[in-house]
Amino acid sequence: MGLLIKKNYDNEKKFINEVKMLALDMINMAGSGHPGVVLSAAPIVGTLYLNHLKFNPDNPNWLNRDRFVLSCGHASALLYATLHMVGYNITLNDLKNFRRINSITPGHPEYRVTPGVECTTGPLGQGIGQAVGMALSERYIEKLLDEEEEEKQNLIDYYTYVLCSDGDLMEGISYEALSFAGAQKLNKLILLYDDNNMSIDGSLESTFNEDVENRFKSIGFDVIVVKDGTDIEAIDNALSQARKNNKPTIIVFKTILGNGSFNQNTNLVHGKPLSESDMHNLRESFGLLSEQFYVSKDSIIYIQQKIKERMQESYEIFDKTMSSMKMSSSDNLTNIFNMLEQNQNVIPFDSSKYKINEKYNEELRFSNYKVMNLFAQNTKLFINGSADLFSSCKNVIDNSAIMSDVTPLGRNIRFGVREHAMGAILNGMALSGLRVCGSTFLSFSDYLKPAIRMSALMSLPVTYIFTHDSILVGQDGPTHEPIEQLSMLRTIPNLITYRPADITELMGCWDIILKTNKPAALVVAKDKVPKIPGSNSLEVKNGAYLVRDCKTTPDAILIASGSEVKNAFIVANQLAKNGKNINVVSIPSLELYLNTDEQYKKKILPEHIKRIVIEAGNTYVLGSLATSINYVIGLNDFGFSGLPAEVEKEMEFDIDNLLLKVDKLISS
Amino acid sequence: MGLLIKKNYDNEKKFINEVKMLALDMINMAGSGHPGVVLSAAPIVGTLYLNHLKFNPDNPNWLNRDRFVLSCGHASALLYATLHMVGYNITLNDLKNFRRINSITPGHPEYRVTPGVECTTGPLGQGIGQAVGMALSERYIEKLLDEEEEEKQNLIDYYTYVLCSDGDLMEGISYEALSFAGAQKLNKLILLYDDNNMSIDGSLESTFNEDVENRFKSIGFDVIVVKDGTDIEAIDNALSQARKNNKPTIIVFKTILGNGSFNQNTNLVHGKPLSESDMHNLRESFGLLSEQFYVSKDSIIYIQQKIKERMQESYEIFDKTMSSMKMSSSDNLTNIFNMLEQNQNVIPFDSSKYKINEKYNEELRFSNYKVMNLFAQNTKLFINGSADLFSSCKNVIDNSAIMSDVTPLGRNIRFGVREHAMGAILNGMALSGLRVCGSTFLSFSDYLKPAIRMSALMSLPVTYIFTHDSILVGQDGPTHEPIEQLSMLRTIPNLITYRPADITELMGCWDIILKTNKPAALVVAKDKVPKIPGSNSLEVKNGAYLVRDCKTTPDAILIASGSEVKNAFIVANQLAKNGKNINVVSIPSLELYLNTDEQYKKKILPEHIKRIVIEAGNTYVLGSLATSINYVIGLNDFGFSGLPAEVEKEMEFDIDNLLLKVDKLISS
Repeated sequence: MGLLIKKNYDNEKKFINEVKMLALDMINMAGSGHPGVVLSAAPIVGTLYLNHLKFNPDNPNWLNRDRFVLSCGHASALLYATLHMVGYNITLNDLKNFRRINSITPGHPEYRVTPGVECTTGPLGQGIGQAVGMALSERYIEKLLDEEEEEKQNLIDYYTYVLCSDGDLMEGISYEALSFAGAQKLNKLILLYDDNNMSIDGSLESTFNEDVENRFKSIGFDVIVVKDGTDIEAIDNALSQARKNNKPTIIVFKTILGNGSFNQNTNLVHGKPLSESDMHNLRESFGLLSEQFYVSKDSIIYIQQKIKERMQESYEIFDKTMSSMKMSSSDNLTNIFNMLEQNQNVIPFDSSKYKINEKYNEELRFSNYKVMNLFAQNTKLFINGSADLFSSCKNVIDNSAIMSDVTPLGRNIRFGVREHAMGAILNGMALSGLRVCGSTFLSFSDYLKPAIRMSALMSLPVTYIFTHDSILVGQDGPTHEPIEQLSMLRTIPNLITYRPADITELMGCWDIILKTNKPAALVVAKDKVPKIPGSNSLEVKNGAYLVRDCKTTPDAILIASGSEVKNAFIVANQLAKNGKNINVVSIPSLELYLNTDEQYKKKILPEHIKRIVIEAGNTYVLGSLATSINYVIGLNDFGFSGLPAEVEKEMEFDIDNLLLKVDKLISS
Repeated sequence: MGLLIKKNYDNEKKFINEVKMLALDMINMAGSGHPGVVLSAAPIVGTLYLNHLKFNPDNPNWLNRDRFVLSCGHASALLYATLHMVGYNITLNDLKNFRRINSITPGHPEYRVTPGVECTTGPLGQGIGQAVGMALSERYIEKLLDEEEEEKQNLIDYYTYVLCSDGDLMEGISYEALSFAGAQKLNKLILLYDDNNMSIDGSLESTFNEDVENRFKSIGFDVIVVKDGTDIEAIDNALSQARKNNKPTIIVFKTILGNGSFNQNTNLVHGKPLSESDMHNLRESFGLLSEQFYVSKDSIIYIQQKIKERMQESYEIFDKTMSSMKMSSSDNLTNIFNMLEQNQNVIPFDSSKYKINEKYNEELRFSNYKVMNLFAQNTKLFINGSADLFSSCKNVIDNSAIMSDVTPLGRNIRFGVREHAMGAILNGMALSGLRVCGSTFLSFSDYLKPAIRMSALMSLPVTYIFTHDSILVGQDGPTHEPIEQLSMLRTIPNLITYRPADITELMGCWDIILKTNKPAALVVAKDKVPKIPGSNSLEVKNGAYLVRDCKTTPDAILIASGSEVKNAFIVANQLAKNGKNINVVSIPSLELYLNTDEQYKKKILPEHIKRIVIEAGNTYVLGSLATSINYVIGLNDFGFSGLPAEVEKEMEFDIDNLLLKVDKLISS
């Protein structure tokens, strides 16, 4: 390197200083924010956008753009200031409204709110997981298009960069996701680590003192160290080098938190605005005018021109290639482009086409496997994975390999025992235009709750398949028996939870899931369930409907979902022998039911009739449909290890007990 | 090593084979279980118990015993068979009842159910986190007793061994916990890794192919590799070596899943009973009689005698030393022994002693810091930590250091940005006789949900402090604003959730928390809250009580917790001007309220009066107390980034909107 002629980086430096000051001004005007990371990471982000990242501010959704994920979402001011400078449609006024209501510059980056923001981040580690999903998707889509074309066009070829902090790396989810990325050899994933050795509570000694470089080597990464994170040339070279690696890369940038501030290298500079004198000191040291929010016109023109020159050719080539591919090629390819470009991942599936034999009686998880394979072949953009529970959850796509670097078009992903990373990676894949789902046991939905919340926040079409959905798990005991999980899922805003009673409803659930561009939790019994008389796939859209109609004014309505519908039926039939008239309402989705109109609700669950909820789990949420909390037969304690029938009996949830309890409630 | 005389390991081998066959018989009789890990890990566990682990089957709670944690809880049959053989009070009949209801041999190990079982495991990774907590506690208690005594007695000196699988290591929680253990230099933690390169779904290629040895070196572990996990001498030597290290140690045992079975080294042997012919083949290869559940009397006598000889002296010395320490030393020390021995972690704190000025108005998180320091000095067994949010949550114990290898008696633990590991480590500390709490933001309670569930399953006195408890977080936006989290916590069985309205109730919450040997979630506002007129610390035990009494038949009762109580007051006072008579019920704990008697409930919330719930979050759970779900004013959508007042207004949850809504409900 010593022999190279020293490049002049004055323009980069000026750009970076301007971005820094803009971001600090934003934080000061907002009265809150994170100056520390602005000052440590600006040289990295600035150099990346100016000299490396492939993007087009006029088309933020360009299919072949490089992805930049800000995993340390609290550095949002830095990102917004950069996006403004490089030409995205973010005005100075937007920057001045940082962290204010209804601005496009919220406290942490939010997907669908700000042009140039790829995803919502903030809860640490999530961005890293999403970035892994994006890199995995790039490889898949790249190979898929290559395969569909007779002649390789190399249309898709982008990198995913993710900026992360110490905090991101401490989170278990990031380890899970990156270990997976290493195993998958995702060479187009480039992790930019702002290694400032400082977190909210201070220095990291006796908290986080790993040999990060060797840790990453050991999980299959190439490692580049930039000893001085303010050295633009070194940053430049590292970024160029990273793209040549045949493994995923981490670039470790040694930086100083709050670099240049009076309080640099202390946690005082992490999370609140700098003092006036500190601002003045920085503005002066950057040689910038003392006006707030000042950026020179020249500077902006130079930068945006430079970026345009760098990108124009590849953008035009892409455009031309894609147009010719669209013209020349198969319907299949056209469909793929449509889905990717619109990012509307809806898959056609008509559940009404399939009639189920009344004698059908199979494990519902196995039925789910069968149903999934009815539509899985309709589009190759449908991809499926499991956190090491394919063998138990059964959600395998037939005639497709396990995804790996050797078989990148395999549509079954073995995430390993990494539920949390699975969720975040699925989010990253959905963000990349794929239609994805992943499976584990319902009790382990706890492990990925934070990632499910991110799906819901971003409204991504990710489907979580949770099998083994009740105490009927039996012998594995209370750790494996969900109790409160259904309630947990049903209370997540913008997530639709489905719990079908049989294969017919299951088909109806998929019908809606595949037509809706939203996250879903599909909760599926492990055990055999018979075809429920009166079950109807088309009724799922109403969330709840009558499956047993006593054809007169009922003494009570039993409300249940999943396996409990079968039991409600048995109870109703038994009590009918004693002259009791009972309706049974199956409720495959509480959320969809609550969205129906009041008239429908009154028809299905008239207020003057006793409404009794039977739920193999926590009673509060579905219980809100009961006449009162006393009309809920449920389980608010942990389960037991034993044969399923033993556990049901121990918890007074077997048929005999249900009969007694329902009878008592009706007679009361 | 070549020069040493080869030791004869015939007795160990016989013992291990008998354990294997017992465990396989258990699995076959139960009709379910995990034979693979029995056959791969039996030599490790057998050698450990026979030659290394310090324990006394006659006193499973011996304070100075080594801890053995089975993180891969699905190997329960192996553990139970071993415990039976080495002399714990587990009969052959107990083994035959494996995985049956009400047996002491459940599907996964359960704390308080089986003698010799240190903790509940099963959800992968949790056991590793708990083991880290145990090793941290050992160091703390060891140093504490040394400090309290004039002359060091080295009374406490034990190791924590944890057996783990590939699955455990893939889970992010294990990485979090072990990275922390490395930073803390917990040299008495010994990880036994059953490295069989096989998981439920098959071989680990392209899923988990790390250089595990180097990964552990890079996080501060010593690494020992045993190339043949069936070589007893090598296992023996590795275990001896591990105890001499001055860092935590991982011993990597290269093993074969289902070793000796027809299906060895495939996932077929992981999770279901072996065939009859396979059982026959194994029994024969072990040279054991063909009778099921057969163990020779001679074998048991020899083993138990050998273990007794190895342990007797140290057990007697411990007994003598502790007795003399109890006689000679301070009250303080006596208290410590009492708490550790009884494992009843109750701390005296009388909230009624403190009177709060009616003008008190402070951030509730800061009040919590003050309250905690009222009792934190009462016992050194109270320890406190944060997932890198001491600066924000404020729960610091005064006059105490940050815990590290240099200051092991520091009572403030910086867990790093590792919420999930924090939960599991706190569980391990509570299992070791300490009274612990840890903090993060309420929205990030999601990250540690699985560990909270473990606290609840084991009924451990862990207190989770969750601050920043509503949309009033404001500018950090929806990722940091809890919505569904309060409901999530309130639905976890056996966890008590507290959400005090002011400092008086906060003291009342701690009063109960400290007297109760149970897990708690303490949800605390970030912002200032005034002293609520009528608030009463002693009423917290009833869960809910009247803070505003309109002294006549009310038009409505407003029910709220936390910051919303203040708002309910304002609304009630405003509406009083229009002649409306309104009671306000503060409900610091829904769970405690539901546990009161029916008479009290009818007094506080009479059924014929309109009951309106105001909750800054999901409406279902607290909403169950309302007249109907329509009488709940809450938030079922995600929040926004903006000033707190802006966010409240945007979500129609500001005082003006509350007034309108309550008025409408009263008038309807």
